[in-house]
Amino acid sequence: MTEPLILHEFALSGNCYKIRLTAAHVGAVLQRREYNILKLETRTPEFVNNISANARIPVLQIGDRFLPESNAACFWLADSSPLIPIDRFERADMLHWMNWEQYFHEPHIGTMRFLRAFLFEENWSAEQRAAVPTRTEMGNRALGLMEDHLATRHLATRKWFVGDTPTLADICLFPYTSTAKEGGFDLSRYPHVSRWLADVAALPAHVTIIA
Amino acid sequence: MTEPLILHEFALSGNCYKIRLTAAHVGAVLQRREYNILKLETRTPEFVNNISANARIPVLQIGDRFLPESNAACFWLADSSPLIPIDRFERADMLHWMNWEQYFHEPHIGTMRFLRAFLFEENWSAEQRAAVPTRTEMGNRALGLMEDHLATRHLATRKWFVGDTPTLADICLFPYTSTAKEGGFDLSRYPHVSRWLADVAALPAHVTIIA
Repeated sequence: MTEPLILHEFALSGNCYKIRLTAAHVGAVLQRREYNILKLETRTPEFVNNISANARIPVLQIGDRFLPESNAACFWLADSSPLIPIDRFERADMLHWMNWEQYFHEPHIGTMRFLRAFLFEENWSAEQRAAVPTRTEMGNRALGLMEDHLATRHLATRKWFVGDTPTLADICLFPYTSTAKEGGFDLSRYPHVSRWLADVAALPAHVTIIA
Repeated sequence: MTEPLILHEFALSGNCYKIRLTAAHVGAVLQRREYNILKLETRTPEFVNNISANARIPVLQIGDRFLPESNAACFWLADSSPLIPIDRFERADMLHWMNWEQYFHEPHIGTMRFLRAFLFEENWSAEQRAAVPTRTEMGNRALGLMEDHLATRHLATRKWFVGDTPTLADICLFPYTSTAKEGGFDLSRYPHVSRWLADVAALPAHVTIIA
């Protein structure tokens, strides 16, 4: 890993935090470039032409190559590390949780956090306001599914999402779950999720979202 | 691969087709179980308790283990096959396109197809109707990004999304792109995408969505 690594990010975004968290666990050093998404700094011609045509952060720059999408950046960083299971089923099951998070979790829980803690209610559009009940219901459904998964494994509970050790599934589910209360979600309703959050935060290499 | 493989699916779903297409390319034989999502057959207690707590298809059953999420099922099937690049950057870049498809492409292009070709306009809710202009704009933006990517690679054009051979990125982008006109999108506006669709469909192992 001799090429310089640059994370193009908005530091408080959970999707960017995932990449920093993965980097901390594998011992990779990231340079960081901050873009204020509230000021649309990833929509500029310079960003679109040079960093990512999709006009979104995060993007992991590896030398002169650019990798958008948080899951892809985490996979690149963790490739051949213990964060990616060797077992074929567990490796795919890790991807299942990473994809599930981006489709069924982050669009609701992450968006509610963005609306409440970054945009603020007085600035919501009518469309954003109308979607709040559905996003809240879907977010709680996602947290409930995580709760049930962690609560049951044969006759015991599960410590981690996949297999017996932490994987990228845990790393990638952590950011938007640990900040869910900023979106109005009550994590005390999910004791196994709360226990798992504490277990992830207690890992030796852990860093916080504001580190 | 001696365990029986069962695809729990709604056959006309692009996410289910991806898995069948991957299986065809790697020579895996799938048994198929059909669920009518219009009749909410994946929301039954039997499905939720025995197949997937997320109450969605597709789910790939591998022996007595269950793998939800199309990208995860495709990765499991293609693991160690030429559809997954050996190069570390290309492998992650493949995941970038697979994740991008699920976040920026399928929610717009796939949803418009579902609304127009499966639910039919007379059955749309007010919320579904209100979102049509945004979904159409975002869908065309996604197709435009694919067009630009395929159109430019140094001084030549790109044949495949990642590297010089077909990967899961091509397999996973194909279903909802090839059926985009059912959602009201005009593919003649995207000549490089149209050329790439023909290239994917010309691969020897290709199967159609109704195969």
